[in-house]
Amino acid sequence: MARVRVHNFNVSLDGYSAGETITLDKPIGEAGALFARFDGRFIHGVDAVDAPITLDRALTSTWGQGIGAEIMGRGKFGPQTGEWADEDWRGWWGDAPPFRTPVVVLTHHRRAPISFENGTSFHFLDATPEDALACAQDLAGDRDIRIGGGPTTVRQFLAADLIDFLHLVTVPVVLGAGVSMWDGLAGVEDRFTVESATSASGLTHQFWNRIGAD
Amino acid sequence: MARVRVHNFNVSLDGYSAGETITLDKPIGEAGALFARFDGRFIHGVDAVDAPITLDRALTSTWGQGIGAEIMGRGKFGPQTGEWADEDWRGWWGDAPPFRTPVVVLTHHRRAPISFENGTSFHFLDATPEDALACAQDLAGDRDIRIGGGPTTVRQFLAADLIDFLHLVTVPVVLGAGVSMWDGLAGVEDRFTVESATSASGLTHQFWNRIGAD
Ligand SMILES: NC(=O)c1ccc[n+]([C@@H]2O[C@H](COP(=O)([O-])OP(=O)(O)OC[C@H]3O[C@@H](n4cnc5c(N)ncnc54)[C@H](OP(=O)(O)O)[C@@H]3O)[C@@H](O)[C@H]2O)c1
Ligand SMILES: NC(=O)c1ccc[n+]([C@@H]2O[C@H](COP(=O)([O-])OP(=O)(O)OC[C@H]3O[C@@H](n4cnc5c(N)ncnc54)[C@H](OP(=O)(O)O)[C@@H]3O)[C@@H](O)[C@H]2O)c1
Repeated sequence: MARVRVHNFNVSLDGYSAGETITLDKPIGEAGALFARFDGRFIHGVDAVDAPITLDRALTSTWGQGIGAEIMGRGKFGPQTGEWADEDWRGWWGDAPPFRTPVVVLTHHRRAPISFENGTSFHFLDATPEDALACAQDLAGDRDIRIGGGPTTVRQFLAADLIDFLHLVTVPVVLGAGVSMWDGLAGVEDRFTVESATSASGLTHQFWNRIGAD
Repeated sequence: MARVRVHNFNVSLDGYSAGETITLDKPIGEAGALFARFDGRFIHGVDAVDAPITLDRALTSTWGQGIGAEIMGRGKFGPQTGEWADEDWRGWWGDAPPFRTPVVVLTHHRRAPISFENGTSFHFLDATPEDALACAQDLAGDRDIRIGGGPTTVRQFLAADLIDFLHLVTVPVVLGAGVSMWDGLAGVEDRFTVESATSASGLTHQFWNRIGAD
């Protein structure tokens, strides 16, 4: 049965997962410290890079396993708000976005889909989490769905109890401000089993599995 | 650059990685306790099974990433010793061995190769670790090589300094007897950086990366 999974999701000690303001110059706003220990080269496997395989990197490499589609919020896709003023903007990632599957981009503003040679495509959708998931499942066949963020998007899927697995990474930094991971989710942990392990870099990895998901 | 990797290699607190005697009835000899916590269903990815994704299972899933060939000892392949009395025996795994790549089986006794529909093939070879590795690399293209065990085989590759990465799993059991993981390897840790993390199940995962491998 296909799962809904979140991977490598970074959160600060004070509960923030993104900066408040995203601009073309600052894709992650003031929250750079959240990603300082994240080695994105490993999302495609521990063999993808000629560098030591640490615990952090081994766990990062599970990101794409069996994933058939991602769902992300428009804030992860780019800095524009309101109507799409610039349709030449095709996301932060240039000609080869790392996703390599269809991606549903949640937005209140219509826009035509975009395709890339490496298998990535962006499909812009105004929908509830439930309907967005149904759309992603159509695109994914029987493979799993990744909820890619940002926090505003993950929070909606957690609130709707649609997440089966969450790999959360607590980063030992205090941001003081940002987009909250936990707003409105008091007690959410009751719906999951949670296992924790700390790596040599000081990250704490948590594995949240929804009770009754198996 | 292709790496030589060992994954999910279980060792007891007293340093054993296999039972002393392997028979048709007891593929792992008296060492069953070594594998009691190992969930082999996860070697092909965290999506392969509809079960909670724990730290142990997430790490197990790196086993096949970018692997183009495995090298194993004859003791992992099956219980026969001496000349191959029974060539109908095609390994423990039936018609669909989990490897899905070419596998070099080290043995002093010649035998014709065997192929399976799922991409697995066994190539029997009498060779030094260096020559076996060259053969596996020919079969693997530019993908990584996994040294699959048993301990007699892993020890040879460690002694020859051919291992770039070793994911070792210390299982909290005392076997009292068995095939040693460490015989003749005093000080081998000096050639590696070693990171450790413990999972909720009580396993200790270690990530050995050869110094200078990157
Ligand atoms: N911590 C991590 O590991 C992590 C991971 C991924 C991303 N990020 C960061 O997260 C930041 C973005 O996160 P964010 O929380 O600000 O925004 P976001 O979740 O990416 O996107 C939110 C926006 O998406 C649209 N949207 C969301 N749900 C919708 C729905 N149900 N229907 C229609 N439209 C919907 C709305 O845009 P409109 O109303 O304008 O259409 C909304 O303002 C980026 O800085 C990124 O770098 C962090
Ligand atoms: N702890 C773990 O995670 C783990 C992982 C994998 C397997 N295992 C277990 O390990 C056990 C087998 O391990 P083992 O150490 O007893 O044996 P092994 O390493 O699998 O095989 C040793 C045999 O392979 C042949 N061989 C090895 N090196 C050779 C070379 N350079 N040239 C020619 N032939 C060579 C020899 O057989 P001949 O002289 O008879 O040809 C030798 O007796 C099994 O019970 C298996 O379940 C454990």
